[in-house]
Amino acid sequence: MVYEKPLAPEDKARLDALLAHIGDEAKTAVGYPCNAVFDYAELWPFLKYSVNNVGDPFEASNYRLHTREMECEVIKFFAELTHLPEEDYWGYVTNGGSEGNLYGVFLARETLPNAMVYYSEDTHYSVGKAMRILDVNSIMIRRQDNGEFDYDDLRESIKIHRDVPAIVFTTVGTTMTGAVDNIPLIKEMLRDMAMGNHYIHADAALSGMIQPFVEEPEGWDFASGIDSISISGHKFIGSPIPCGVVLASRRNMERIARSVEYVGALDTTLMGSRNGITPLFLWYAIKRHGIEGFTKWARGCLEMAEYAVEAFAKHGIKAWRNKNGNTVIFPKPSQAVLDKWQIAVHGRIAHIITMQHVTKETIDAIVKDVVENPVPE
Amino acid sequence: MVYEKPLAPEDKARLDALLAHIGDEAKTAVGYPCNAVFDYAELWPFLKYSVNNVGDPFEASNYRLHTREMECEVIKFFAELTHLPEEDYWGYVTNGGSEGNLYGVFLARETLPNAMVYYSEDTHYSVGKAMRILDVNSIMIRRQDNGEFDYDDLRESIKIHRDVPAIVFTTVGTTMTGAVDNIPLIKEMLRDMAMGNHYIHADAALSGMIQPFVEEPEGWDFASGIDSISISGHKFIGSPIPCGVVLASRRNMERIARSVEYVGALDTTLMGSRNGITPLFLWYAIKRHGIEGFTKWARGCLEMAEYAVEAFAKHGIKAWRNKNGNTVIFPKPSQAVLDKWQIAVHGRIAHIITMQHVTKETIDAIVKDVVENPVPE
Repeated sequence: MVYEKPLAPEDKARLDALLAHIGDEAKTAVGYPCNAVFDYAELWPFLKYSVNNVGDPFEASNYRLHTREMECEVIKFFAELTHLPEEDYWGYVTNGGSEGNLYGVFLARETLPNAMVYYSEDTHYSVGKAMRILDVNSIMIRRQDNGEFDYDDLRESIKIHRDVPAIVFTTVGTTMTGAVDNIPLIKEMLRDMAMGNHYIHADAALSGMIQPFVEEPEGWDFASGIDSISISGHKFIGSPIPCGVVLASRRNMERIARSVEYVGALDTTLMGSRNGITPLFLWYAIKRHGIEGFTKWARGCLEMAEYAVEAFAKHGIKAWRNKNGNTVIFPKPSQAVLDKWQIAVHGRIAHIITMQHVTKETIDAIVKDVVENPVPE
Repeated sequence: MVYEKPLAPEDKARLDALLAHIGDEAKTAVGYPCNAVFDYAELWPFLKYSVNNVGDPFEASNYRLHTREMECEVIKFFAELTHLPEEDYWGYVTNGGSEGNLYGVFLARETLPNAMVYYSEDTHYSVGKAMRILDVNSIMIRRQDNGEFDYDDLRESIKIHRDVPAIVFTTVGTTMTGAVDNIPLIKEMLRDMAMGNHYIHADAALSGMIQPFVEEPEGWDFASGIDSISISGHKFIGSPIPCGVVLASRRNMERIARSVEYVGALDTTLMGSRNGITPLFLWYAIKRHGIEGFTKWARGCLEMAEYAVEAFAKHGIKAWRNKNGNTVIFPKPSQAVLDKWQIAVHGRIAHIITMQHVTKETIDAIVKDVVENPVPE
């Protein structure tokens, strides 16, 4: 027998209650960018085994319970989406956006020692932590009202520190307003200042899976001059386990590679042991949605965001969104509304994110709740 | 419909073949410390939802699809096993041993800036990477033949750098030989040199779940003077997804805490988003094994290791193991044997690890293969 004893009835009851509770709460989760529409039941049997994609997905390993072949196909798919040149691409499936961002700044620091990192005050909070872990010098740049960098502040700050290389941490779809930093403009700025030694990382947690599928994408990818990118898997694509991809040029990655005899694998990833199931989830979603499916989804989410802006407007509530953004910003509502809909707030603004599971009925219900539960004067 | 299209027949065939292949390979996986005996099918339905234990498990969060209550119970269980004082314990479920070790050294560096890190040449390879990420000064110490620190070298090295605080990275069950560093001796050494500013982290990936259950444990825990510890979940306990716990005193952790409004959670963990399923796996295993079950398992693994040492000896092959270790070391066999049994090598030695799925029949078969396939002269 696998186990010493059966689960006690009270523990079984707790599990059942938790599952039911999570199922209920999922219905009102509109404040976070996690797509709830997925079904990976076909892959659950892989959870019978200790699958582990240890080390670099592109290198062989002694440990043979892995899904690296599918992982490499996932990376190739994202390399094409982000226009990373065929002959120089590299990446791996991470445990989520934070790991991809930490990896990107690590790669940048190893490439350009003693550089200054510039990031916006609207950068995701985990990035400040990543800089502390990596012990890099950094300057926080002011934001514009829409959530993009204040480019004048960025230009002035770089100008003052032209004696050290520049690492610019950009965001493609900020957490609070879904803003996309103007990477072509930043690139031009660096060129104007003759800053040959620079590195641009893009945190494209959510919008990295929207930009490839819209009619007028911003300049957000490797073709626009980024050096690495982190895209989440559990956000737009959807996954029960947080995951993501980080992509970089192989040339840069090789700076931090270190051959290790123990597992017979190049030690290029941040963590070493990596689960083999989330690469399968991503592979499966890519196969079953295809470019057509993702395109329909992305455009549907943006249409739903526009519907939300208009639904709020009908009731005189000023809501807005950035171009190509499915994050709808509106004035912070009452606590009852925040609690019911698990809405994230930042100072005086709040947002909902029209992911795939958010319908017109959901939006109508939210707007109704906001109207009927005004903020006390 | 969730998906745009069904899985193509050739893709379905690839998945089926991969699952069958992994099932086959699992039978001969004796070179890595991953227990294959587990069954979490009862928990698979949680994979229908985007469960995410974002941030500190002990702090409330706006995001309500989580399993933090069970996670806290898991941490409490490990705090008791490692004798971390009830009033001062803290920890979280990680993505595996590497994350726990990175966290431990991060905590150490924040606690003692400008410290020197001392680690052994038998430390897991991921630790060197962690030090590079954290950009700390470090010295690699010689190993003894059995895999422990060369304590003379450690003493001499600390003596030379008494002007800076000491962070000693110890291992409770080394990767190659299952050796346990003598933490009480190291503690005494630091006291002798009046090194008041010191920090001891323990990498107890595998043996952190063996030591609590043996009759004569080494001095390996908080009672022996460690400041933080990382224990894997997918090793002794068994999990299809790499995971682990990191434990530290709350006092130290609070140095790196940072309040963030966005998720309404304290930002104390390394990653931010954290999956909610592996805490459930650990909780479930703890409930269904209990101390009795784990004790039987640990002692069974050690008996099986002793059986292996004797089985090799009967054929004149010098195999050995450390006290309380289920890692059996023997001379590097032929490539055919290494390939068949997924055995890890390090220079001229190889090892098998008698995890719960390794039976006497398995060992007899390995010994037979080693004898019948001698290394070419």
